[in-house]
Amino acid sequence: MAQALEATDQLSVRYNAEGLIPAVAQDVRSGRVLMLAWMNAEALAATLASGRATYWSRSRSALWRKGETSGHIQKVVRVLIDCDQDSLLLLVEQSGPACHTGAQDCFYREVLPQGVLRRTGEGSMQ
Amino acid sequence: MAQALEATDQLSVRYNAEGLIPAVAQDVRSGRVLMLAWMNAEALAATLASGRATYWSRSRSALWRKGETSGHIQKVVRVLIDCDQDSLLLLVEQSGPACHTGAQDCFYREVLPQGVLRRTGEGSMQ
Repeated sequence: MAQALEATDQLSVRYNAEGLIPAVAQDVRSGRVLMLAWMNAEALAATLASGRATYWSRSRSALWRKGETSGHIQKVVRVLIDCDQDSLLLLVEQSGPACHTGAQDCFYREVLPQGVLRRTGEGSMQ
Repeated sequence: MAQALEATDQLSVRYNAEGLIPAVAQDVRSGRVLMLAWMNAEALAATLASGRATYWSRSRSALWRKGETSGHIQKVVRVLIDCDQDSLLLLVEQSGPACHTGAQDCFYREVLPQGVLRRTGEGSMQ
């Protein structure tokens, strides 16, 4: 079963018990990892059909077309799926900051030992 | 509540109902997104303490020190956490292929419309 998932050319998404799959957005130009969000089957279909990243908002229980209120859209260049078809990677062209906090990406803090966070100016890239 | 999570310098990981958080591994040199795996609190603590990526294997229900059988270890340069503290990004130095299939990373297939996958030679970077 696992072997087939890894070698097949047929999409067979393994959604979790809530019908969701994690989707990582990476800036196709800078390589920066922008965010991790979730998709259901409808969000994935909308993303593929529109070329605009569309997620499932777990807090609002609604489709969330990234940037529909902020204007900070993600144009999707490519959608990749991992070996066992339970994670997605979106290569995107990001307009404006990706994070709702205004940060360029959501990963603006480093985890240090003893449970302390340090804000970095660098985001995901060195 | 959400505001505090985004601005605090205190680690307050929001694990899911199974006690897990998704962790994305990115190659610190190439910028390539290698894989997405899962951590519980013990895996995160082991990663921070050892500097070696350690995940929770959901299929085996056991700690999984990446590379312990394959030798394809991940030396962790930095652990980042996202705005609402429910996703991790590990910047790593990867030894050998990251994927158990032998691929450089796990995202070796592109999702095309109509549910067809196309194998790419490029992985996550253009």
